[in-house]
Amino acid sequence: MLPKGNFPEKVYVNGEIVSPENAKISVFDRGFLFGDGIYEVMVQLENGVFYKKAHLDRLQDNLKKIGIDYNVEEIDHQLQPLLKASDLTESSCLIYIQVTRGTAPRKHSYPKGIPASVMMYALPYSLPTVNPKHMKAILEPDFRWHRCDIKSISLLGNIMANEAAMSANSDEAALVRDGMISEGSHTNIFFVKNGTVITHPADKHILNGITRMIALKLCNDLDIPVIERPVAENEIEHMDEAFFTGTTTQVASIAQLGDHIFYNNDQVGDITKKLQESFAQLRKKDTANSFL
Amino acid sequence: MLPKGNFPEKVYVNGEIVSPENAKISVFDRGFLFGDGIYEVMVQLENGVFYKKAHLDRLQDNLKKIGIDYNVEEIDHQLQPLLKASDLTESSCLIYIQVTRGTAPRKHSYPKGIPASVMMYALPYSLPTVNPKHMKAILEPDFRWHRCDIKSISLLGNIMANEAAMSANSDEAALVRDGMISEGSHTNIFFVKNGTVITHPADKHILNGITRMIALKLCNDLDIPVIERPVAENEIEHMDEAFFTGTTTQVASIAQLGDHIFYNNDQVGDITKKLQESFAQLRKKDTANSFL
Repeated sequence: MLPKGNFPEKVYVNGEIVSPENAKISVFDRGFLFGDGIYEVMVQLENGVFYKKAHLDRLQDNLKKIGIDYNVEEIDHQLQPLLKASDLTESSCLIYIQVTRGTAPRKHSYPKGIPASVMMYALPYSLPTVNPKHMKAILEPDFRWHRCDIKSISLLGNIMANEAAMSANSDEAALVRDGMISEGSHTNIFFVKNGTVITHPADKHILNGITRMIALKLCNDLDIPVIERPVAENEIEHMDEAFFTGTTTQVASIAQLGDHIFYNNDQVGDITKKLQESFAQLRKKDTANSFL
Repeated sequence: MLPKGNFPEKVYVNGEIVSPENAKISVFDRGFLFGDGIYEVMVQLENGVFYKKAHLDRLQDNLKKIGIDYNVEEIDHQLQPLLKASDLTESSCLIYIQVTRGTAPRKHSYPKGIPASVMMYALPYSLPTVNPKHMKAILEPDFRWHRCDIKSISLLGNIMANEAAMSANSDEAALVRDGMISEGSHTNIFFVKNGTVITHPADKHILNGITRMIALKLCNDLDIPVIERPVAENEIEHMDEAFFTGTTTQVASIAQLGDHIFYNNDQVGDITKKLQESFAQLRKKDTANSFL
């Protein structure tokens, strides 16, 4: 029995499309025992799955990083039947995908010769063309691991940070490692200073978001200079603008970060606004097979 | 269908005792989606469950650390029925317990008002009175999070390190953070120098193992001086002895750590041997309700 809540109509689990009540996996699945898996979140908009290829390529790349032998082409093949069964073929929706190493007796090292487990579902989800939020974010210590480049389901560090934000009636937590701002609990973060966009480099301390990469490409297209370097916590007050990016967050203006208030009213910074508008334009294109 | 392997006869899942094939949880369990849970491993020996109270107290303490509202007394009540159903009431076995935050639509922050999920099983397992292994361990970068004091199921960092050890035909990986040795991938590590036992303090960079605490108590009982401080990687060659501790590892002599060879033959250091022998004596006692 599932509790009340916004569950999907159908779930794909290891080759079958079932009701959410029947969507079950073995307690010996290494996703459940060890957080041993990779996930992706995509959205289907007016023109198909937004940057589908970019997401699936990243999923394949992440699976390779932790040695899970699985070809994501299967997911691409199963996606349409899932959307159809979910009555979402033509609808805006969020698509969640998770691949774990599979089911085996509990032992730390990787079992050999077992098939990966695959779970995915689609949930009705409508995204405004521009994220209207004026986000308030807290600063939290970044005590996560040092392989945040891996989009792993071992997410306890992230959910603890996000819970701290929700408990503080904020929208997000920006994480601070060794005095430097790395990223949000499930977003990337950007700053603007004197017309230049500044964001943490895509090293092992952040997840290189698809929307992060899109934002950088848009900066390039718009002739907005970019510097990829970490911003220190004590630099925040000297910054002109700040925004979060993410698949469902899109480009979201930050009104307050920690104690620093960027805007007391509904203002949005010039560069943030330009990027929001350019980002909205991408929805008119078929981006499913686009490279970034 | 489960693959071939050493699965338990029975599994306790949320109030029911079922066959391993039927031991399933929802794909919306936060253990599966986020690694959002805590685990414990105990062993039943000749005189009952070894330091059962210490393990269950730690489980309760860890659940509290991440805000999972669950009373571990239920586990204590369900343990005997599980052992009986598994035909292990009087037998040596390993007991695995996992508590996750429960089942809810996927959202980072903590859902309210849902029951925790509980899974446990017992597996036949015999432990020698003294671990006869002469362990070979590699050194691996410790890229795990900074809350290793939490016995969380978000274990990808640990399993990656353990897999590196297995791939190198070693028994364990000792982890090195900022030049200092923290712990093993699923053990604690101790050194001996001039008759003094040295081990990493129980801060947020290690899991304070029950066997670690027992070893420290035995040192006290045996008048062996102890210093709790991290040992640097470049100090290894100057150490006289080294050993791992853990629930199934007990006290295990280290013959080789990284490039440094402590013993080319089957020698075991004097202090390590003393601790192994004293540890073996504990099995003759009923430790189930002992405090450490």
